[in-house]
Amino acid sequence: MYKFPTTLTSMYLAMQTWRSCGMAICFLRWFHISRLELEHIEKYPNAKLISLGIGDTTEPVPQIITSTMANYANALSTADGYTGYGPEQGHKALRKAIVKAFYKDLQIKDTEVFVSDGAQCDITRLQLLLGSKVTIAVQDPSFPAYIDSSVIIGQAGDLKGDGERYGSIEYMNCGPENNFFPDLATTPRADVIFFCSPNNPTGHAATRKQLELLVKFARDNGSIIIFDSAYSSYVQDDHCPRSIFEIPGSRQFAGFTGVRLGWTVVPDELLYSNGFPVIHDFNRIVCTCFNGASNVAQAGGLACLSSQGFKAVNSLVDYYMENANILGEALASVGLQVYGGANAPYIWVHFPGSISWDVCKDILEETHIITVPGSGFGPSGEGFLRLSAFGHRECILEAAARLKTLFL
Amino acid sequence: MYKFPTTLTSMYLAMQTWRSCGMAICFLRWFHISRLELEHIEKYPNAKLISLGIGDTTEPVPQIITSTMANYANALSTADGYTGYGPEQGHKALRKAIVKAFYKDLQIKDTEVFVSDGAQCDITRLQLLLGSKVTIAVQDPSFPAYIDSSVIIGQAGDLKGDGERYGSIEYMNCGPENNFFPDLATTPRADVIFFCSPNNPTGHAATRKQLELLVKFARDNGSIIIFDSAYSSYVQDDHCPRSIFEIPGSRQFAGFTGVRLGWTVVPDELLYSNGFPVIHDFNRIVCTCFNGASNVAQAGGLACLSSQGFKAVNSLVDYYMENANILGEALASVGLQVYGGANAPYIWVHFPGSISWDVCKDILEETHIITVPGSGFGPSGEGFLRLSAFGHRECILEAAARLKTLFL
Repeated sequence: MYKFPTTLTSMYLAMQTWRSCGMAICFLRWFHISRLELEHIEKYPNAKLISLGIGDTTEPVPQIITSTMANYANALSTADGYTGYGPEQGHKALRKAIVKAFYKDLQIKDTEVFVSDGAQCDITRLQLLLGSKVTIAVQDPSFPAYIDSSVIIGQAGDLKGDGERYGSIEYMNCGPENNFFPDLATTPRADVIFFCSPNNPTGHAATRKQLELLVKFARDNGSIIIFDSAYSSYVQDDHCPRSIFEIPGSRQFAGFTGVRLGWTVVPDELLYSNGFPVIHDFNRIVCTCFNGASNVAQAGGLACLSSQGFKAVNSLVDYYMENANILGEALASVGLQVYGGANAPYIWVHFPGSISWDVCKDILEETHIITVPGSGFGPSGEGFLRLSAFGHRECILEAAARLKTLFL
Repeated sequence: MYKFPTTLTSMYLAMQTWRSCGMAICFLRWFHISRLELEHIEKYPNAKLISLGIGDTTEPVPQIITSTMANYANALSTADGYTGYGPEQGHKALRKAIVKAFYKDLQIKDTEVFVSDGAQCDITRLQLLLGSKVTIAVQDPSFPAYIDSSVIIGQAGDLKGDGERYGSIEYMNCGPENNFFPDLATTPRADVIFFCSPNNPTGHAATRKQLELLVKFARDNGSIIIFDSAYSSYVQDDHCPRSIFEIPGSRQFAGFTGVRLGWTVVPDELLYSNGFPVIHDFNRIVCTCFNGASNVAQAGGLACLSSQGFKAVNSLVDYYMENANILGEALASVGLQVYGGANAPYIWVHFPGSISWDVCKDILEETHIITVPGSGFGPSGEGFLRLSAFGHRECILEAAARLKTLFL
């Protein structure tokens, strides 16, 4: 077997930097959950396993959307319907429809909308734009992709002694004690603040007041906010903005979201200190590092935004939110402290003083239900579990009943 | 309008590094071609413009593929047909089908195949893996994405005095004088060699002998080859390997390709100097920075690889290759030196002593045909034009006739 000679140190170092320092702690934990699941199935081959783990949808896509995609696909085999590469930034009609549906009265232009293949890919492209020399702050706990991509790009620094935090990342603790909003008075300045609302995993949707404080903090410090609103369509409470752009003064930040299809908004006013618009560079990254989202998926996205499609998607949202309600009520009824679930499809359950991995394993052993230990989302997630509300109704009802029995 | 305070130097620097040093020369030239086209349309609103410019397909997708995609899309609205996230690495059935169709007897395992959304995205993910500290070598001329992504990642160094080359990139001249294969005796060592065959823009497919020399050179130097075979299905000549993995000793390199759908192969044997397999890190990048290719597109990809689909795709290839033949013969018949077109859908025409931008503009003015100046693909492309053979047959015939008239 061939090995690189040890003289290949430059490449070795570049790759080792993020691997040897413990790349993707969270990634490894996801892997552990899959393994836990496999071991459990082997141990109890006849048990009916219910997964409230990975946040993956289970209900069929509304027919108005799938039939549009099917028609689009079928047309590709006709001379009139065939299209080659579309624009990397997305089809004009879709960009316009996104503005109309989500940014009415918010001054967002369709040329500021970049259609993508989802939030996870957008995060990486934004990180490519930022480069390795910026300092970043993230909510703790948070969706692992911010920190993982930060490690890959080289922003994160070394792992600290506790093995749970990177030295160059500012972890903004968000828990019940601060209403899931960081204490900005003690938060050091960072070049970039990743902020996700409604939050994954806690399910907390920031209030207008909280977002106003965040925008002021960022402007005072010359920080850029990258606002992730992938779950905005689950927001029920009108005091919780669905977009950062509802907050005055926020047009200097970037926002991205994903309802089956994703997009990123980069306002024209976001400038470098020399006055050059950031949108020009983001456009270059999109054109250089991305082929554009699948034509068929974009056709489906456009169908989602028709009035019929919007209604159909909203009833799916209602379905999952009713699931969240069922799970939340069951857990609260046995005296557990439950957060989230009101404006997001995630339930965040507190087990004070417990190790979340232990609780996760106990629940699996006793009820055959997969959950996610909160510590997988960052050190402040310790003592919590995340339950996803995606699932068929009968599975959710069954899971609620099993959990009630366990904790009664 | 808000501006970043000048104290935000770290972020400013990270972004400026690749922009101020002349990011994406080629990107800007593509932009210039679009502008040229728009100006021409304005000047000659009634002329029948024919584009042999951007390499974008024009013929309908075979029905076997579109109907499979349509059926897959339709099924998503049924309880049985619905699927959520697939594996980031691609569906197992597709990975197996790729191995069977392309790597029979070449020891490639389906677990070494990573399905993607196309070559351009794969290049960026490979660059993320490599990091900013490696040295790279590229064919000159070459597809702009290697150098553009290298600039974005931070490998490229400063632009040299001539404004056409980056200081830290090794440009391997490939022209008629060396049968489009670099003179390896004078090529300095680089950590990574990007090699594209059949080549875009020259249309040259490297011979087995050439690839054997390349593999030996890389092994002797401890370099990694990243082999781009996006146009492998156009290869007609059996002396030209369709995959780097046909060359013994090449299982320590990475290869990627894209026939409507893309994939990258990372063999298990590709190791860091400490013995750690690179495939583990590439897998992490794919899982962290990518959501997986669209389910519908993967269903279409699988249909391409059925025997009926394969046949249909091959007759499309034949169609475009006949286009290439028509264009090549027309240009040769008027005494021009023509390269490529035999194993790739690109024609590379030599205009010795001319500035390729001038030739491009003259042809547009006289014949209303869009071409691409060779200098857009690197300094060694000066004096050449690239013509794409993608187009409807009647447009190709018309273009061939106009060019013959012009140069007779």
